[in-house]
Amino acid sequence: MRIDIITVLPELLEGFVRESILGRAQKKGLVEIHLHNLRDYATNKYRRVDDYPFGGFAGMVMQCEPIDRCISALKAERDYDEVIFTTPDGEQFDQPMANTLSLCENLIILCGHYKGIDYRIREHLITKEVSIGDYVLTGGELAAAVMTDAIVRIVPGVIGDEQSALSDSFQDNLLAAPVYTRPADYKGWTVPEILLSGHEAKIKEWELQQSFERTKALRPDLLKKKD
Amino acid sequence: MRIDIITVLPELLEGFVRESILGRAQKKGLVEIHLHNLRDYATNKYRRVDDYPFGGFAGMVMQCEPIDRCISALKAERDYDEVIFTTPDGEQFDQPMANTLSLCENLIILCGHYKGIDYRIREHLITKEVSIGDYVLTGGELAAAVMTDAIVRIVPGVIGDEQSALSDSFQDNLLAAPVYTRPADYKGWTVPEILLSGHEAKIKEWELQQSFERTKALRPDLLKKKD
Repeated sequence: MRIDIITVLPELLEGFVRESILGRAQKKGLVEIHLHNLRDYATNKYRRVDDYPFGGFAGMVMQCEPIDRCISALKAERDYDEVIFTTPDGEQFDQPMANTLSLCENLIILCGHYKGIDYRIREHLITKEVSIGDYVLTGGELAAAVMTDAIVRIVPGVIGDEQSALSDSFQDNLLAAPVYTRPADYKGWTVPEILLSGHEAKIKEWELQQSFERTKALRPDLLKKKD
Repeated sequence: MRIDIITVLPELLEGFVRESILGRAQKKGLVEIHLHNLRDYATNKYRRVDDYPFGGFAGMVMQCEPIDRCISALKAERDYDEVIFTTPDGEQFDQPMANTLSLCENLIILCGHYKGIDYRIREHLITKEVSIGDYVLTGGELAAAVMTDAIVRIVPGVIGDEQSALSDSFQDNLLAAPVYTRPADYKGWTVPEILLSGHEAKIKEWELQQSFERTKALRPDLLKKKD
């Protein structure tokens, strides 16, 4: 799988792409992540890629041409499953979408910045607009990082322990059960006795019950999605 | 405002904290962001901060003691408004929560990693559990970065153009209107004529109408929140 991220701030993402799970996935040859500096596609010597909005609004808008040139250059080299734009008014990113995108061959993620991108790019070149949540960020870089992490970690082979990923929150529309580790008694804070009992079947039952109870209390909306 | 982020992977966040708006906000003296390596609070010479979960489950769990030691050391120095834990089963982070948190003096954000943290920490030391969305990430670092960005950018003085922030999506439970910049005609893709008209009142009316229409089409749930 290959992910191309287009941004005006590649330095914001470099550490993230090199470190942690993305670095390991790339070393294993399971994914390739490429950062593209949009300014390399500017058509002026100042490497400017934004301009004032029509209509006298506040903020700056990213121009059509550099984005078009960058996406066209990538598309000339290979086919892309999706050209994604990260924007607060896009479709909500969730675990099922991460699962679907993790099956793609090639993805482009365009990070918005400033007040936004020229809307014509969204109409003509973007195939999927995605939001990671109902809040506004300085730029789309963190949204691209979040999506990339959620997608790459479920590519088979990326995390050593696939059983662990399968029992994550959301994979079955249930929140995960509480987890505990040593010591069993820390400053008088104790672990539920059942977990120390060694009764495998009873522990599984407890885990499922805790998952259901926590989901019912905290996120009843997820239970409705189970059908 | 001061934000202390506790993590096992500070190198993942260093670029992000140094660059972009967070770097500028710190240079202006408006915010302080401190990264704390949880391993500095380990009690063993291997700097290990995780162990196997009780009950024979898959994955590794972050232990009570290093987290307790780190949070206690910080609390001994100043009062904190909230000790936040980033977790997919927490309260959903949104713009109103970002607005509220931006008014705080001191915040701790603890990043979960591996399979999770010992649940006793959540019961005894965490005051607020927050999720940035319904998906699972490798660790809480990106969630902490997302929250920090959303919170810091609305601290007064951080972004030059406050009018721009006020017209963002979600601040009034409406999605933003489309934006366009030069050229007015790019490859035959044209800008709505009204924006080139110079009629300020009509442009404002168009903007509001576009906001409403896009919200109604894409996120009707937001309109219900307006009351």
